[in-house]
Amino acid sequence: MSPLSRRRLLGSAGIGAAGLGLGGAGFLIGQETASAQAATTGTVEFHGTHQAGIDTPVQDRLHFAAFDLVDDDRAALRSLLEEWSQAAAEMTRGRRIGGGGDVVLAPPMDTGETVGLSPANLTITFGFGPALFERPGLELADRRPTALQALPPLPGDQLNEGESGGDLCVQACADDPQVAFHAVRNLARIGRGTVILRWSQLGFGRTSTTSRSQETPRNLMGMKDGTANIRAEDREAMDRFVWLGSDVDQDWMRDGTFMVTRRIRMMLEVWDRAPLVDQQRTIGREKVSGAPLGESDEFDPLPLDKEHDDGRPVIPARSHVRLAAARENDGRKILRRGYSFTDGVDESLAELDAGLFFICFQRDPAAQFVAIQRRLGQFDSLNEYIKHVGSAVFAIPPGAEPGRFVGEGLVT
Amino acid sequence: MSPLSRRRLLGSAGIGAAGLGLGGAGFLIGQETASAQAATTGTVEFHGTHQAGIDTPVQDRLHFAAFDLVDDDRAALRSLLEEWSQAAAEMTRGRRIGGGGDVVLAPPMDTGETVGLSPANLTITFGFGPALFERPGLELADRRPTALQALPPLPGDQLNEGESGGDLCVQACADDPQVAFHAVRNLARIGRGTVILRWSQLGFGRTSTTSRSQETPRNLMGMKDGTANIRAEDREAMDRFVWLGSDVDQDWMRDGTFMVTRRIRMMLEVWDRAPLVDQQRTIGREKVSGAPLGESDEFDPLPLDKEHDDGRPVIPARSHVRLAAARENDGRKILRRGYSFTDGVDESLAELDAGLFFICFQRDPAAQFVAIQRRLGQFDSLNEYIKHVGSAVFAIPPGAEPGRFVGEGLVT
Repeated sequence: MSPLSRRRLLGSAGIGAAGLGLGGAGFLIGQETASAQAATTGTVEFHGTHQAGIDTPVQDRLHFAAFDLVDDDRAALRSLLEEWSQAAAEMTRGRRIGGGGDVVLAPPMDTGETVGLSPANLTITFGFGPALFERPGLELADRRPTALQALPPLPGDQLNEGESGGDLCVQACADDPQVAFHAVRNLARIGRGTVILRWSQLGFGRTSTTSRSQETPRNLMGMKDGTANIRAEDREAMDRFVWLGSDVDQDWMRDGTFMVTRRIRMMLEVWDRAPLVDQQRTIGREKVSGAPLGESDEFDPLPLDKEHDDGRPVIPARSHVRLAAARENDGRKILRRGYSFTDGVDESLAELDAGLFFICFQRDPAAQFVAIQRRLGQFDSLNEYIKHVGSAVFAIPPGAEPGRFVGEGLVT
Repeated sequence: MSPLSRRRLLGSAGIGAAGLGLGGAGFLIGQETASAQAATTGTVEFHGTHQAGIDTPVQDRLHFAAFDLVDDDRAALRSLLEEWSQAAAEMTRGRRIGGGGDVVLAPPMDTGETVGLSPANLTITFGFGPALFERPGLELADRRPTALQALPPLPGDQLNEGESGGDLCVQACADDPQVAFHAVRNLARIGRGTVILRWSQLGFGRTSTTSRSQETPRNLMGMKDGTANIRAEDREAMDRFVWLGSDVDQDWMRDGTFMVTRRIRMMLEVWDRAPLVDQQRTIGREKVSGAPLGESDEFDPLPLDKEHDDGRPVIPARSHVRLAAARENDGRKILRRGYSFTDGVDESLAELDAGLFFICFQRDPAAQFVAIQRRLGQFDSLNEYIKHVGSAVFAIPPGAEPGRFVGEGLVT
């Protein structure tokens, strides 16, 4: 059985259990309600061929953290990865770390803020940054996948070191933000002495979908986002663009992928002052319906060849959807899985520090994200309203079978 | 009909509408499921004797913002308050600002990121800081309620100016964080030129309850928080401790209240290293059950006079619950309505910048919050694990009837 369908089945088991919790009325409830319940009570299996949190239907909330190793200590890294996987398996099942077997004279093994909450479809996804492979004491240089390279400077980059990079990453996604916070906080606690927190990012709302079962959400520009994303149901596209196969140069990365994150600040005050027609021409879609300009439905194909009577293209030459479209990028696609964020006030501008924490997965960052972003950074009309302030890339190893741990292939 | 019960009824109408949305299965669903639906689809009426967002059952998410006036311009302040109430009434009903009547050649009247989302029990609560009454050009000095004074220095304060104070505040609470963000963002947009954003705070999870219908949540220390809070159903306590009556010195504040906010940073790394017994003695409650030490149920009364065989009190002398208990504070109570937050990494400590954004409501901040906090700040065992880094106080005027606006009594 494929890991995807196995996770589905386990997810369905979670729905069943939730149904029972409703008591006598439970079995009278139709499919629609069962799905609504699943949104907050579901369980996503941690173990599998691929890590969860990539092809999993996008949960509502994110807590992302990047860590740096304290010492070049391979044994410590191995122990950490082992403990992290063990804790992740417990947390994703809604169990307390250590099973609640605390003694009063010791610190609790779990910090406790999720006691009584459901797992809320928690997924925890681990990754390794390029810098990890450059630490001489770890002797990991010969295990480095060729495709794992720090991203080159890209047009329009305004990156802050403090929101970029990292030796290790943890992506925690859940439908309850307290569950996602709890995961990162406990993994940081377990890592104390071995890793220090480099940066972290809370995402309050998903801006994409990875499943045909999900509605397309809106980003903070008020536009539907992710309409043309790869869907996990399209196994062929997942294998072609996302999952690493037997041809990968490092066997421990087989069934893994690569993740790129970009903290994209939106200049919302400028955007909000733009006339609707400009907003729509910037993106290339209608704001309310999400339909491509000149079409009527969100899922209508982009009319890239359609022209107005005066010969101007209906989808403007520098519009975001045209420049990002697979047809205009030699067929390149990426799997997007980003979140909206706001982090208080940008003091230099006295406006909300808000935008999109962009996350994408692909087989080859240089050939996919970098190639697409190089064109966007140069030509996209949207650049008037955004700036990329944080950036990172991580190798995402395959999932672990029960009894094994994520990243075992790297450190063994 | 009281505004409280009117809001309840309108809330129920929201549940009914949601039930219809479920189709044929809708009327087979029992009460429990209807309540679960209400959590995400309900509507809370903006208009009423009191502002909403005080006695409203605490929604899951918060976006709070403090603003400063750009100029001492009373006419501009009046216009702003009028526009804010109008927009708030539309947003809390789930309508787009301006009713969706946008023209393509102008900027949209609503930023659009909540199109397709439910109002998610959105409430928007407005307040006025002491500094507003000290701006000479506004000529508001004679309208200042005596009880509205900047908070005095309190023991243990480590306040940052940039996270404190403000001429005006907006508290937006909703069960969907995108809905709360949208409210603050659009009010900031409407206020452009009249106010600038001073600070803002996102809260990802409620840490209190204001209704007997709600379960007690856990704060980031993993402890149940708010067990002994005032409940809105206790009308006598609300009138005694929260709502201003006919005896208030400024008639425009009748049916209003005062809000105190404190950004309380939790030193979670230190807390997480404390043995369970110390955590429990610091608070005075069992961690998992929430029961007072020496008792078995969360809602058992605090056994303040109970002693161990050796004469030590069962609820330690410096425990948080003892020092905060009404009996130890001459009967003083406040209505708490706080939220957990995390705002990335505290760079000086390389740990999560996280804690409690404390909000409380009371008739007299000096006699209630300040008196209680003065003792807590001096003696509370919890001080080892927290620091107060932000502080503000606001006069919360009464609600507005339809056709009027919040704060009209101040600026007329």
